[in-house]
Amino acid sequence: MSTSVASMFSVTAATGGVTAPEGFTAAGLHCGIKAKPGALDLCVLAAQAPAAAAGLFTTNLAQAAPVTVSKRHLDVTLGRARAVVVNSGCANACTGEDGLLNARQMAAEVAAALGCPIEEVLVASTGVIGVGLKMDKVVPGIRQAAVSLDRGQGGVMAQAIMTTDPFPKEHAVTVKTPRGTFTVGGTAKGSGMIEPNMATMLGFLTTDAKVEPAVLQQALRASADDTFNAITVDGECSTNDCVFALASGASGVEIDEDLYPALVAGLYQVSRELAISIVRGGEGATKLITIVVRDARTVADARRVAKTIANSPLVKTAVHGADPNWGRIVAAAGRAGVSFDVNRATVRVGGILLFENGLPHDDNAPKAADHLSLKDVSIDVHLGTGGGGDATVWTCDLTAEYVKINGEYRT
Amino acid sequence: MSTSVASMFSVTAATGGVTAPEGFTAAGLHCGIKAKPGALDLCVLAAQAPAAAAGLFTTNLAQAAPVTVSKRHLDVTLGRARAVVVNSGCANACTGEDGLLNARQMAAEVAAALGCPIEEVLVASTGVIGVGLKMDKVVPGIRQAAVSLDRGQGGVMAQAIMTTDPFPKEHAVTVKTPRGTFTVGGTAKGSGMIEPNMATMLGFLTTDAKVEPAVLQQALRASADDTFNAITVDGECSTNDCVFALASGASGVEIDEDLYPALVAGLYQVSRELAISIVRGGEGATKLITIVVRDARTVADARRVAKTIANSPLVKTAVHGADPNWGRIVAAAGRAGVSFDVNRATVRVGGILLFENGLPHDDNAPKAADHLSLKDVSIDVHLGTGGGGDATVWTCDLTAEYVKINGEYRT
Repeated sequence: MSTSVASMFSVTAATGGVTAPEGFTAAGLHCGIKAKPGALDLCVLAAQAPAAAAGLFTTNLAQAAPVTVSKRHLDVTLGRARAVVVNSGCANACTGEDGLLNARQMAAEVAAALGCPIEEVLVASTGVIGVGLKMDKVVPGIRQAAVSLDRGQGGVMAQAIMTTDPFPKEHAVTVKTPRGTFTVGGTAKGSGMIEPNMATMLGFLTTDAKVEPAVLQQALRASADDTFNAITVDGECSTNDCVFALASGASGVEIDEDLYPALVAGLYQVSRELAISIVRGGEGATKLITIVVRDARTVADARRVAKTIANSPLVKTAVHGADPNWGRIVAAAGRAGVSFDVNRATVRVGGILLFENGLPHDDNAPKAADHLSLKDVSIDVHLGTGGGGDATVWTCDLTAEYVKINGEYRT
Repeated sequence: MSTSVASMFSVTAATGGVTAPEGFTAAGLHCGIKAKPGALDLCVLAAQAPAAAAGLFTTNLAQAAPVTVSKRHLDVTLGRARAVVVNSGCANACTGEDGLLNARQMAAEVAAALGCPIEEVLVASTGVIGVGLKMDKVVPGIRQAAVSLDRGQGGVMAQAIMTTDPFPKEHAVTVKTPRGTFTVGGTAKGSGMIEPNMATMLGFLTTDAKVEPAVLQQALRASADDTFNAITVDGECSTNDCVFALASGASGVEIDEDLYPALVAGLYQVSRELAISIVRGGEGATKLITIVVRDARTVADARRVAKTIANSPLVKTAVHGADPNWGRIVAAAGRAGVSFDVNRATVRVGGILLFENGLPHDDNAPKAADHLSLKDVSIDVHLGTGGGGDATVWTCDLTAEYVKINGEYRT
């Protein structure tokens, strides 16, 4: 996915996040879910009129109540939504029938305030599993948020969805096409790819392009494959993961077959930026690691090898220690369960050749170690199968701080 | 596999390790592969006469030279061996044609000393990947070891195969049957389930039972499934993993169909003890975690869920922090890729119920936290599918020390 496909459109960075596209407002506040005074823990994203809506949800069998409710709402409306309500600090997962009722009530409060059907409100939660929502805090909070909606509050939403995230994540792009210009914006949270306990990855994308829900769903899925689905902090898939996209149509630019690639490119660019930010802010992370696997038999094989390397604790700790330990990379690739000939594979770190024809190039190790002392590092593996399957995955290093965060959380 | 199957035989602990069964001798010494003066790094295990031999090898595509050589030797001899030669400190992996020649030469030196065909010698190496063996140290070392073989040196072998292992691992059992008594002994090394860099898991089992190679291979595979193949420290599968079994026949007890379960029970008991010792000595480990998954649809499903929980960094860090975080256990089970209904699943920690019918039992959390402060802890997950598939997996906690060991190794 390049920004110059067919040069029929251009994608350039814009300022702001979810409210950068026309037709969207947001509000965020502290309602009291988080103990810390003033810590933002609730927000509403609203479209001025019913928007086309699409969603991607966790594949975990243990699905949180807001996931169940949002899926049902998208089914009922056939992909239309007026708003999304999100809380942080509580995942509303493994909370039984009460949890479902609470998620429904969150939607109902927003629907009442905006004057829309309850099914046009999507719900997301992020935080500790197995704890019930304090509805006596949440309900008044939603009522207040609903009367505070403003286009200038996109950045507040980016903060209100955070849990252990070290920084807020938002991005927007302008997509110029021969038939007009539209904007795509978004925000996301997550500090483990998935943090089943403190909750997980959430993503919210908006656009003022005019697009049918089914097309929006297809474009969202296409853009997520190489962005949100290509990152990992710790290999954990959560109970609350979801990414929503809302399209207001306010730009008047209608997405047909010709402009579909431009929509995907816009969603892709925002998703990629947010996804990489999640990894950069991974729990305890000090380095962003870009892993590129080329020439596997298939793209699926390439992704599997890249994910295996990305989730290898030995590779992640070696990178943390700036040790160009190509042996661990070869061993991880070799156990990924895909077919290739180790003697035809090459391994590069920071572009520096370390392994080729089954043999090390240890004379290059000092240069590779220098590269690994940087904050942004790269691992390139060429499998040499002739199949041409390529994939990129982003991850972070594994540090003592990760152990500390996750050994002490909740206590 | 219980020790009282059909009560036709009994299995009781014995002293010693690989030389506990009759017909075996060993020798170990410092030849100079390891830099530290006096650190044992070479050993030979010998049978007085050609023994039935069986081997299990890493499934990693990147296979070390000694793995390639040992597999070929077992193929040529149809499962006969006189000796095993093992070095620690160097994995002889990713070392190309030179590595193969060196592994062959190790076998040749032992064969010359014992007066047997080179194919009757098996080879194993463990240590850093991608570094060549110092044959000027190894060859004289092997020659010296070959003239120092002694039945009293089993414990020396257990030490000579160690790399980062915090302690040596050996075990032996006596198997009493209606047709006589035989002994099974063994030693193993490994501090990550697999440490591709410092090398991996190696296991050496001996018995004085009289058994055909094909039967020994079958029994070895059967006993490894629920022992060596049921442990994980970090989910990494190495380039050098192997387990060998040698049967001298010196006890005169012939293994036929009736006594086959007794042989498996003996091998199982020794393998289980060694496997659990590996986890207990896992890199940075402070706790042994026994994970039992019951009532999955199949045994394979149960094992997959147990392994997913065992490799979850969030579960491992929570156990390290003595946090009875059942939400992370449920989330790991839910992403394991097997089918079950979360609302029918139960989670217990130390036997204490924490999750049932989709809801937490947080009143029990303090008792479960007490249990997790112990050194040996248990996690039990009942999936409630009605399928009856059970599996047990052993792992250890994930600690800052693991990060330290693997971020600093080699530097």
